[in-house]
Amino acid sequence: MKIDINCDMGESFGRYALGNDAQLITRITSASIACGLHAGDPLVMEHTVRLVQENGVSIGAHPAYPDLQGFGRRVMDLAPEEIEAFVLYQVGALAGFTRSAGVELAHVKVHGALYNYASTHLPVAQAVARGVRRFSQELILVGLAGSLMGQAAEDSGLRFASEGFPERAYKPDGSLMSRRLPGAVLDSPEEAAKQAIKLVSVGIQVTNAGINEAFKVDTLCIHGDSPNAIAVSEAIYNALKAQQVELVSLPDLLG
Amino acid sequence: MKIDINCDMGESFGRYALGNDAQLITRITSASIACGLHAGDPLVMEHTVRLVQENGVSIGAHPAYPDLQGFGRRVMDLAPEEIEAFVLYQVGALAGFTRSAGVELAHVKVHGALYNYASTHLPVAQAVARGVRRFSQELILVGLAGSLMGQAAEDSGLRFASEGFPERAYKPDGSLMSRRLPGAVLDSPEEAAKQAIKLVSVGIQVTNAGINEAFKVDTLCIHGDSPNAIAVSEAIYNALKAQQVELVSLPDLLG
Amino acid sequence: MKIDINCDMGESFGRYALGNDAQLITRITSASIACGLHAGDPLVMEHTVRLVQENGVSIGAHPAYPDLQGFGRRVMDLAPEEIEAFVLYQVGALAGFTRSAGVELAHVKVHGALYNYASTHLPVAQAVARGVRRFSQELILVGLAGSLMGQAAEDSGLRFASEGFPERAYKPDGSLMSRRLPGAVLDSPEEAAKQAIKLVSVGIQVTNAGINEAFKVDTLCIHGDSPNAIAVSEAIYNALKAQQVELVSLPDLLG
Amino acid sequence: MKIDINCDMGESFGRYALGNDAQLITRITSASIACGLHAGDPLVMEHTVRLVQENGVSIGAHPAYPDLQGFGRRVMDLAPEEIEAFVLYQVGALAGFTRSAGVELAHVKVHGALYNYASTHLPVAQAVARGVRRFSQELILVGLAGSLMGQAAEDSGLRFASEGFPERAYKPDGSLMSRRLPGAVLDSPEEAAKQAIKLVSVGIQVTNAGINEAFKVDTLCIHGDSPNAIAVSEAIYNALKAQQVELVSLPDLLG
Repeated sequence: MKIDINCDMGESFGRYALGNDAQLITRITSASIACGLHAGDPLVMEHTVRLVQENGVSIGAHPAYPDLQGFGRRVMDLAPEEIEAFVLYQVGALAGFTRSAGVELAHVKVHGALYNYASTHLPVAQAVARGVRRFSQELILVGLAGSLMGQAAEDSGLRFASEGFPERAYKPDGSLMSRRLPGAVLDSPEEAAKQAIKLVSVGIQVTNAGINEAFKVDTLCIHGDSPNAIAVSEAIYNALKAQQVELVSLPDLLG
Repeated sequence: MKIDINCDMGESFGRYALGNDAQLITRITSASIACGLHAGDPLVMEHTVRLVQENGVSIGAHPAYPDLQGFGRRVMDLAPEEIEAFVLYQVGALAGFTRSAGVELAHVKVHGALYNYASTHLPVAQAVARGVRRFSQELILVGLAGSLMGQAAEDSGLRFASEGFPERAYKPDGSLMSRRLPGAVLDSPEEAAKQAIKLVSVGIQVTNAGINEAFKVDTLCIHGDSPNAIAVSEAIYNALKAQQVELVSLPDLLG
Repeated sequence: MKIDINCDMGESFGRYALGNDAQLITRITSASIACGLHAGDPLVMEHTVRLVQENGVSIGAHPAYPDLQGFGRRVMDLAPEEIEAFVLYQVGALAGFTRSAGVELAHVKVHGALYNYASTHLPVAQAVARGVRRFSQELILVGLAGSLMGQAAEDSGLRFASEGFPERAYKPDGSLMSRRLPGAVLDSPEEAAKQAIKLVSVGIQVTNAGINEAFKVDTLCIHGDSPNAIAVSEAIYNALKAQQVELVSLPDLLG
Repeated sequence: MKIDINCDMGESFGRYALGNDAQLITRITSASIACGLHAGDPLVMEHTVRLVQENGVSIGAHPAYPDLQGFGRRVMDLAPEEIEAFVLYQVGALAGFTRSAGVELAHVKVHGALYNYASTHLPVAQAVARGVRRFSQELILVGLAGSLMGQAAEDSGLRFASEGFPERAYKPDGSLMSRRLPGAVLDSPEEAAKQAIKLVSVGIQVTNAGINEAFKVDTLCIHGDSPNAIAVSEAIYNALKAQQVELVSLPDLLG
């Protein structure tokens, strides 16, 4: 069994520090770096690209709604062509730093409310995919396992990496519970590790409109900004190792 | 005689329209497109790249201080490494759109207060040049004729295009008069055309610290957002044609 | 018959000019001034308050979603307590300028997507009303005639001014057609004037869930940023005068 | 001996937490609350006003340059009328929350680069003072002891509270060492406590242009966002108590 572990990184902004990038970077195989519109700024992007590169971790862009105050976690009613252009803008901005560092951008994963909205709204997912595709057909689109993001990636001729969340509670239809609800985040490292193993071994079961379908998971998302992020990531990392799961980056996994 | 004519473009933002891009595009050979931090947004960038490309005009990035409310016209005390990162960010963001359109980014010209500040402060000019150079050594750096931008370009191994301003009043040291002062902008199309011809034929004479030096001019800047922008651009264009000056883009001019 | 005419004002931002405030100010009795988050900035607010005051027009605040790039026209999924705090923030910011000018703030009208969203979502309307009420119970809340804003005002103990739109097409349920749809804006001054007279004399008929109800209109909204804003405002003004409709500000109208 | 202790508060922003407001609030007599342009947002302002009020601490506004990414610590070349309008805007915005809470705004202290710039540039200090004075003549202006802020307050008819910094290294001319330099911040609680006692008992000695002058100190600034903020504040608080220095808020101190 093989799996990628990804983490959102570079979410500090100016004076504001967020996340535990330096500690988590040794426990992941792919990093999704914020692009300045929901988090991150040019200096943070610069330092984060360098940190990720030095640790031999694969790099992706992490575009979002243009909403710093809401940390990209509030749905905004953007037209599809706006979403497409905003994704392209952010991927390009980060690519300036990876290009300068001599590394390839490997994937794109959109953030927060845009991620969730695209999962269940095909025109939004397609706008995201078009924005990514316009930058490069080589990019891997990361999205919620079993969601419409997979279809959008296929429509655009992009490889799709289906993502699972060890730390988040799922609804029966395969979507994530809103962070505004209690119990949405599994705080215990043990529970998260257990869910990680399940996601890797059996994938995720989605029940929607009477249809029951299973989806494999290519990459596990570790949250970098939770209070116990390090304990959780250790628990997941160790549980995977104990099960002889091989950790590989997305480009290696998807070929 | 040969010259490039450049104009800042894509300076609209959301609901706010600015400039006369569609009319001026037929009178220029290079367009410097705003990158979203002093003006422009992803949709505006998208449309502007398309407009410029359709008219066969060469494209450059137009990065600035991150100051939308001040339109990039207020000096901000950024450290050199911030300037470098902000330039790289903006060049990358625009390059996403040019890459997607299948055109090459040809030059970078910084905007407003950053342009003026870099002209007279070598560490700032060098930070700008490093940001550009890190994206690509093929990019041409555009800067004020006779200013420190030329030296910074040379230090970074970039080609330099020296710029003249037909519509702006010069100080004896070769710098531009502040827009806050009366007389800083030559409003009459005839005056501007006359100054254009002078800039092309004899360049600009700079007197600084007792030293008198002449500098050639590679590109003339047309302002797109002044009330009489079209009349001025017509006058300059016609005057150059009447003098058999050949209009060529920066990459063609600098080889 | 009496009516107030209101117009959104102060929607310029930095280098970006928008609207025709100086010309329209003589045709209205109430001005809703942008507060810096969807449009306007401190200098624009300063100048606009002065202009409105000099013309003896009543002043209101025009708060919006924090979305300059979208001009406050995109719904954002803010929690009610965020909306309440954002409204209070913006009203307070404008009140600094009116207080300094020695005039009273008379009303609050929220802008764009927040206006529309509040019209049909009671928790949003109530959050708006709470934000207004917390600043002062003396403020008049302006909202769409026949919408939930009226109920929210009542719940908060605020006077309500019901608004009609001479230039906008209505849906049968009394809501406005989306600006993204063709025909949403009546461009002809004659049509707008005709609709103005109808709104003043018979109000607006709302059909919703099988119920048919008529609502009076206290204030007519003139759009300041449309290409033919001046012609439209003249036509409406003259039509009202011809029908002997008395123009009075909101505080005079609602006592 | 009497002294006020002030601390900047409410400097979190959206997802980004900063400072130790809840712990420091019991050790101070005045809180300067960020107004949304360098830090803070409407929800943060709301919560901070409530926290400060519940602890019976006096409230002031903490306006800054409009520069969230730079945390208001980078000088921006704003014209005096812009500074005046930006100060008035921010004071008004915070005053919405204090008014709603039923408390009086007692003072204004500008933040970061604007504070330092105003200390040494009279037109800037006067613009700040005008912005404050336009909101209310009852407000106390807080500024660096011995700086031009004192003169500007006097020119505007405002009471002035002269401030000392127990944790910051001073230059002989009475200005603070730049945070970019090593040694600018005294990290040791003991050193800070010692400097606090000295500031209270003998004030600050300023040597400028050959003139030697002593200035009393009305209020001590505690930094809320340094790693050892709580230890430092405890040390200062205890040292003052041990010396029988009475802690009183600015309005009580200045009458």
